[in-house]
Amino acid sequence: MKYVKYGKCTCCGREYPAVPDLTNCQCGGILDIIYDYDGIRKAFTKDTLRERPDRSMWRYRELLPIEENTPPTPLRVGWSPLYEEPRLADMLDLKRLWVKDDGQNPTASLKDRASAMAVVKAREAGAKVIACSSTGNAASSLAGNAAAAGLETYIFVPSRAPKGKVAQLMTFGATVISVQGSYEETFALSKAAIEKWGWYNRNAAINPYLSEGKKTVAFEIMEQLDWQVPDYIAISVGDGCTIAGLWKGLKDLHAIGFIDRLPRLISAQAAGCCPLNRAIETGEPWKPMEENTLADSIAVGVPRNAHKALAAIRESNGLTVNVSDQEIMAAQGLLGRTCGVFGEPAGVTGTAGVKKLCEQGLLGREDTVVSVVTGNGLKDVANAIKACGEPITIPSDMDRLLEAFAERGVPVS
Amino acid sequence: MKYVKYGKCTCCGREYPAVPDLTNCQCGGILDIIYDYDGIRKAFTKDTLRERPDRSMWRYRELLPIEENTPPTPLRVGWSPLYEEPRLADMLDLKRLWVKDDGQNPTASLKDRASAMAVVKAREAGAKVIACSSTGNAASSLAGNAAAAGLETYIFVPSRAPKGKVAQLMTFGATVISVQGSYEETFALSKAAIEKWGWYNRNAAINPYLSEGKKTVAFEIMEQLDWQVPDYIAISVGDGCTIAGLWKGLKDLHAIGFIDRLPRLISAQAAGCCPLNRAIETGEPWKPMEENTLADSIAVGVPRNAHKALAAIRESNGLTVNVSDQEIMAAQGLLGRTCGVFGEPAGVTGTAGVKKLCEQGLLGREDTVVSVVTGNGLKDVANAIKACGEPITIPSDMDRLLEAFAERGVPVS
Repeated sequence: MKYVKYGKCTCCGREYPAVPDLTNCQCGGILDIIYDYDGIRKAFTKDTLRERPDRSMWRYRELLPIEENTPPTPLRVGWSPLYEEPRLADMLDLKRLWVKDDGQNPTASLKDRASAMAVVKAREAGAKVIACSSTGNAASSLAGNAAAAGLETYIFVPSRAPKGKVAQLMTFGATVISVQGSYEETFALSKAAIEKWGWYNRNAAINPYLSEGKKTVAFEIMEQLDWQVPDYIAISVGDGCTIAGLWKGLKDLHAIGFIDRLPRLISAQAAGCCPLNRAIETGEPWKPMEENTLADSIAVGVPRNAHKALAAIRESNGLTVNVSDQEIMAAQGLLGRTCGVFGEPAGVTGTAGVKKLCEQGLLGREDTVVSVVTGNGLKDVANAIKACGEPITIPSDMDRLLEAFAERGVPVS
Repeated sequence: MKYVKYGKCTCCGREYPAVPDLTNCQCGGILDIIYDYDGIRKAFTKDTLRERPDRSMWRYRELLPIEENTPPTPLRVGWSPLYEEPRLADMLDLKRLWVKDDGQNPTASLKDRASAMAVVKAREAGAKVIACSSTGNAASSLAGNAAAAGLETYIFVPSRAPKGKVAQLMTFGATVISVQGSYEETFALSKAAIEKWGWYNRNAAINPYLSEGKKTVAFEIMEQLDWQVPDYIAISVGDGCTIAGLWKGLKDLHAIGFIDRLPRLISAQAAGCCPLNRAIETGEPWKPMEENTLADSIAVGVPRNAHKALAAIRESNGLTVNVSDQEIMAAQGLLGRTCGVFGEPAGVTGTAGVKKLCEQGLLGREDTVVSVVTGNGLKDVANAIKACGEPITIPSDMDRLLEAFAERGVPVS
């Protein structure tokens, strides 16, 4: 890793050699990976990048903590589409708006970026098995990316985990351990097992490489915008790893001179579970909250990467916004019918936040905004069913169709 | 459309000018779009293509029936990944095997290729509304692609349509008419409404442009293989439009000299619903069958594009293979744990067919095969749940974990 200097604790500043199985600092703090930006500046230019045919997260190799000879992961992760959405911008009265649809990843969420990184680092560590505890996108993305790479996975889920998500894991061949107990108890058993068998640890708040995978979403946004920096980038926030990764990517690009300023982040949380935003808003340390939202991927009452996330929001002079479940589901419909993008509830929470900030007058026609959709709506069809209303139901009869259209004011002519 | 000559009936040979709202021949036959291959040969080379940055189905513009100034559709359709799968090839004792994961499309199925074409042609026709009758991937892909393009959709579904699929349509803003009756009655009402209001018709067996969209999957496979022709391409078959499109794309490439021979097609159907394969196998005309399979997207007892599909299989000297639902679900698991690819039942039927042909000795270690996965497993989580078995369920206790691993023979050391 020519350009990686070391891992550095975000709490106490202690430094660690960047071995592949790096975990937390002995003080408990989460590490950050530190790069030799001067070296990267010399070797890596926008022209180098433009010539590169690889359209995946691995096209940014110089800015990633991987060995030069490490092969990329088999599944095509990253280079998800960035759509400009002029009609939605008009509706919200924004100058320009783009939607980054990261549900277009192999297992249908942004988490594939972290899991692909976990697979690469596990291989470098010589590990044959990767483990994590999770009920959601982290688990399915790990199971899928590891299966493609021929690695085994052990995944610990609390027994309340939805059957559909467990089925996806098991289809990818994961050994799934369903723990009869809370998430904390599940995590505890996974931790004990990881220690006992020396499995590679894919827990984003423990393994500092994972947000280095997530940061590729920032690289892509900026390259897809031809390095023209938007005023804001909005994203949903749960345990904090994703927004921290996004910010790291932006700072990387700034440090090597690819962008000349930094956008402000918009941290969107569910009103029923917003411990990080509450900390920003009150200026007090974060405190646990209940997990009172249907947006399951960001229902995180005890965020495991609070430190990095809060620093990212503050450093960027970011905005916070908390949205109700109703506002989240309204954003799902808005993105669907205006942009043809179907996001899961947590996935569209950033867009719900943008809409709310527009209504509050905090964003307006001077502003350019990118909204990241972090996961595909097919992950949670049950909530879409509840939100989308009922179809017109009639017999096969043209007169009844005319009546139904008239009743509902369907504009046919 | 510089290189499109006309539409020609596949039954009676009558020719029609290639207007944007072309439908069937007056004899009832389905039309084929005929190109000026000599003109294309002169203007379009592999080098031209290599320089093109566009990574979507629209990169093959010269071979598509669209006007030169027609903008591409907003959603990124096509250029799905083609993965080489050496481990699965070894397991099946094939020389080489690739999986084309077409579930990696905006609405998660190959049908996006046809729907994007429908959106382009509707715009050329000056239409503001597109309609179809369907319960599945055609409907959701139409709704998504049309929403992104700012077109309205009216979609007729039989009232037995699964709620999840209806929810996806409604999230994309489609006006959904749920018809209390059979599919035939649903189709009849849609036909009457399309005629009454002059909506643009997206029914793949009526609109001859749609398989021209589908054929881009063949272009991509061949370009991704650097024009090295595999011995076989396997795909699941329902109403016949997709295999017909695949074959058309291959013949196009052969006609313009991009490939020097044609692969053989493998037509995979469900054993419980295989009217097209039965026709090939018996040499008799096709007859309707019951729709006795869980692979809903290919449960088509009365295939609407039988003529083109049968011609494609015969012309290619193709193989047919019929697989049980059990074999389909086994293929879902095999692709998941070996390749990290999660396909819906109909999506993995081609791979189930390849496996069966290997077991029967009809494919072997001399053969190179591409298997197309036509839709994402997240489209039908219910069947995955039934197929994948149960997780290990225990309390948070290391001794119980050790016991459970020992009982199940889980290989931890």
